Amino acid sequence: MSRREGGRRSGRGAQRQAGGLQQLPWQQVRNPYKPVEVLSEDQVEAIHQAALRILEELGIEFMSDRALDRLAAGGAEVERASGLVRFDRGLVEQSLATVPERFTMTPRNDAKALEIGGDAAIFGLVNGPPFVTDLDRGRRDGNFADYLNLLRLGQSLNIVQYVTHQAVAPMDLPADTRFLDCYEAILTLTDKAFYGTAVGAERVVDALEMVAIARGERREDLLDRPSIFSVINVNSPRRIDGPLSEGLIALAEHGQPAVVTPFCLMGAMTPVTLAAALAQQHAEALAGIVLTQLARPGAPVVYGGFTSNVDLRSGAPAFGTPEYAKASMAAGQLARRFRLPYRSSNANASTSVDAQAAYESMMSLWGALMGGANMLHHGAGWLEGGLVASFEKVVLDAELLQNMTEFMKPIAVDQDSLAFEAMQDVGPGGHFFGTAHTLERYETAFYAPILSDWRNFESWQEAGSKTATERANAVWKRLLAEYEPPPLDQGRREALAAYVARRKEEYGRLAA
Amino acid sequence: MSRREGGRRSGRGAQRQAGGLQQLPWQQVRNPYKPVEVLSEDQVEAIHQAALRILEELGIEFMSDRALDRLAAGGAEVERASGLVRFDRGLVEQSLATVPERFTMTPRNDAKALEIGGDAAIFGLVNGPPFVTDLDRGRRDGNFADYLNLLRLGQSLNIVQYVTHQAVAPMDLPADTRFLDCYEAILTLTDKAFYGTAVGAERVVDALEMVAIARGERREDLLDRPSIFSVINVNSPRRIDGPLSEGLIALAEHGQPAVVTPFCLMGAMTPVTLAAALAQQHAEALAGIVLTQLARPGAPVVYGGFTSNVDLRSGAPAFGTPEYAKASMAAGQLARRFRLPYRSSNANASTSVDAQAAYESMMSLWGALMGGANMLHHGAGWLEGGLVASFEKVVLDAELLQNMTEFMKPIAVDQDSLAFEAMQDVGPGGHFFGTAHTLERYETAFYAPILSDWRNFESWQEAGSKTATERANAVWKRLLAEYEPPPLDQGRREALAAYVARRKEEYGRLAA
Repeated sequence: MSRREGGRRSGRGAQRQAGGLQQLPWQQVRNPYKPVEVLSEDQVEAIHQAALRILEELGIEFMSDRALDRLAAGGAEVERASGLVRFDRGLVEQSLATVPERFTMTPRNDAKALEIGGDAAIFGLVNGPPFVTDLDRGRRDGNFADYLNLLRLGQSLNIVQYVTHQAVAPMDLPADTRFLDCYEAILTLTDKAFYGTAVGAERVVDALEMVAIARGERREDLLDRPSIFSVINVNSPRRIDGPLSEGLIALAEHGQPAVVTPFCLMGAMTPVTLAAALAQQHAEALAGIVLTQLARPGAPVVYGGFTSNVDLRSGAPAFGTPEYAKASMAAGQLARRFRLPYRSSNANASTSVDAQAAYESMMSLWGALMGGANMLHHGAGWLEGGLVASFEKVVLDAELLQNMTEFMKPIAVDQDSLAFEAMQDVGPGGHFFGTAHTLERYETAFYAPILSDWRNFESWQEAGSKTATERANAVWKRLLAEYEPPPLDQGRREALAAYVARRKEEYGRLAA
Repeated sequence: MSRREGGRRSGRGAQRQAGGLQQLPWQQVRNPYKPVEVLSEDQVEAIHQAALRILEELGIEFMSDRALDRLAAGGAEVERASGLVRFDRGLVEQSLATVPERFTMTPRNDAKALEIGGDAAIFGLVNGPPFVTDLDRGRRDGNFADYLNLLRLGQSLNIVQYVTHQAVAPMDLPADTRFLDCYEAILTLTDKAFYGTAVGAERVVDALEMVAIARGERREDLLDRPSIFSVINVNSPRRIDGPLSEGLIALAEHGQPAVVTPFCLMGAMTPVTLAAALAQQHAEALAGIVLTQLARPGAPVVYGGFTSNVDLRSGAPAFGTPEYAKASMAAGQLARRFRLPYRSSNANASTSVDAQAAYESMMSLWGALMGGANMLHHGAGWLEGGLVASFEKVVLDAELLQNMTEFMKPIAVDQDSLAFEAMQDVGPGGHFFGTAHTLERYETAFYAPILSDWRNFESWQEAGSKTATERANAVWKRLLAEYEPPPLDQGRREALAAYVARRKEEYGRLAA
């Protein structure tokens, strides 16, 4: 067979890997590359100036008296009747000056601490979908059993570095206390960084209390030691609702990172043009960031970007589009201009785990990581514009995240890797399979995928002609079958259960 | 329904687009972004120096006396017995000095001229597979009927900018003259830039003769006006075979671009390390480039990169891997260092048009375009490591290429796009659907996909729960149904047929 390009060789047998699923080791991912700049410096400045004008002239609505009090005390111009708050540029600049450029998340297991900021990047489990799906059982309401399994996958996959309180919404549990069950599950089934909810200050305090119990510490010990984090979504245009305003303040007061993320669908929540969407996103994010610094100067905070477009045909949101990728890179430029840690997402709008889900996620991932994102939310499992958590998508995304991680591994160029001597030993038209240089490095030379199948057509057909999605189905089942919970002291486990029971009772009395 | 992120809104009805397939217009794609640099300047230099050492000390084998004559006359050190040619760095530098930085391909239709080099990027149809596949008929031997349909798709899709003499190999035609049938098909079914074969000088001359006939010109008129191009693959390690050596010389002598592309599978055709593979690729490409400049100083030539890795488990080639993406960007750096136009590919190793095909292609595309590629070979339709041309993959790839093209559309930032006045009109929590600013721009504000389906789950389910691949099947059938050949003067058409008939007879006498 010809060895010109396109000639796939038959390979040396279809030797398969034995033992547990071979995946990348746990690691702090770092991005060695200079981000892609989709905006010129002048354009970044123009967008920043437009955002300052929005903050000064139009203002942002905060639906919380506590937030309005803080903002007024900090020097913002507060219009009590409407809840509108206007910020002069001095206040914005003063607040930006105290934001830490980077910080470290302390999870249950210190060995899985995560740096956020600089060249570090972290990847999280999906959060928020009301539905869940897999190839066997189809699309169904979110429920606690599926939630637990998604957590187990999040724990098992090394490339998923933080886990979420609502990988899927457990709709079968009481709405007002289900977060407690989820918090307990995170802290017993996983030992990774804790992503909680900030809908109201109480849930923030509960999260901190429970992380402290799981770590054998007191809540006070976690002050200014980031141990929980949560997204504060802006209800774009220009509104932060009451519970999230108070959650944001509670996070900041405890020195815990808020991830301030306007949700800017161009043509719906913002004007239809990307420049305007970026200016509005920037203004909204800055407003939230100012409030964190007024609540506690120096509180960690993350600049969140989530700007995409709607479908021109139906008005439905679209994700992982070209506009989304550009917005993701542009937001990174805006965040870096003020040395703010930057959050993006692994989004897509596909209804099934197919080629569309893969290419839209890839647009999102390249947009995020070549945009210098430090935190990738919804990293694994998000499908259907975030309405659905998919088990197969968790595995597909883990493969994509591993691919991107390996892509970000710097290239070694030295005498050893340039291998002139190895080339001397192989004549024109020869091959390097058996050379000492190859044999010494063969096992670890290349990335070994968890999902890609590179067998020839005949072997693939003999194995059942399975698509990547069907293979992903087998992978998550295998991961669940092999799952083992990380060790947790029995006393702490019981203390967590007792805390949850007590708090459920208190919430019950409150609701009654 | 909540408008926090992840809340997909039901949209404004499932209004579908009417009329012909809406696709991006024909265009010269330009990449406004600075390429990603995966190598430091020092590393680029170290790899270049390693390549010069390979050229000086180890040499490249040319299996053609004509090539050896040219190289010896040009000052290379030729070892007649082995065919090994050693190049000193002076010869390399002298040759690089005469390579044009950019040039323009003249196709049958002047309106579809293509710039190659600088910030321009062009995308081509797949070339070379012996097999063809689609969802209806499955995988089968390449044949002329399928070849013609692939050409029709290449003509119909604006984002496919050049067409290829072997989108699939027509195995049902006589091997020695099938290229003539393919040339004739290209020149009658399409009017786009002509990619031919350079296996021997005669096929190059035939291509030029036929393009001249189709344009109503003489072959001499096309001298130094690039009208045909072809890849010259190096049989790595360090060998260029006889017919391709002579094809390369013929291309150069006529001032037509050769695309010199070593096929470097790490661990097989090169050492297992990326640095060595890049050094070897660079040496091999430079050797071919030197020969073009000795054949005709100033001849257009393209630096081709095609470095990937083998599967550690089976030895099978892998494409669209993290290593592949890095190699693609690194090769771009090496090419740009010498102001050479750079060619990369849209490769993948998937056996079906599934999520793997999509994410591997995306790794390849991002690697190529963020690596500054000027020419993307195998842009649409390549599957299974190049063994198969897939009809559904043509459509999937057209979607990916359109996505990347839109991603490369610069962001406008001005008073109009910053839309401060539009924001004034919409209060906190409101929406921009009905504003004048939105309505004026709505139709053209965002990229409209040809394959992505953004309908909600219920609408998608009602439409048959089709995956992207199944939808791609419907798209190519529609394109074929709507296909119309570009106008061609009847006299030229007949002259082409007569030329082919005469040449077949001559080849027949030659074979007899």
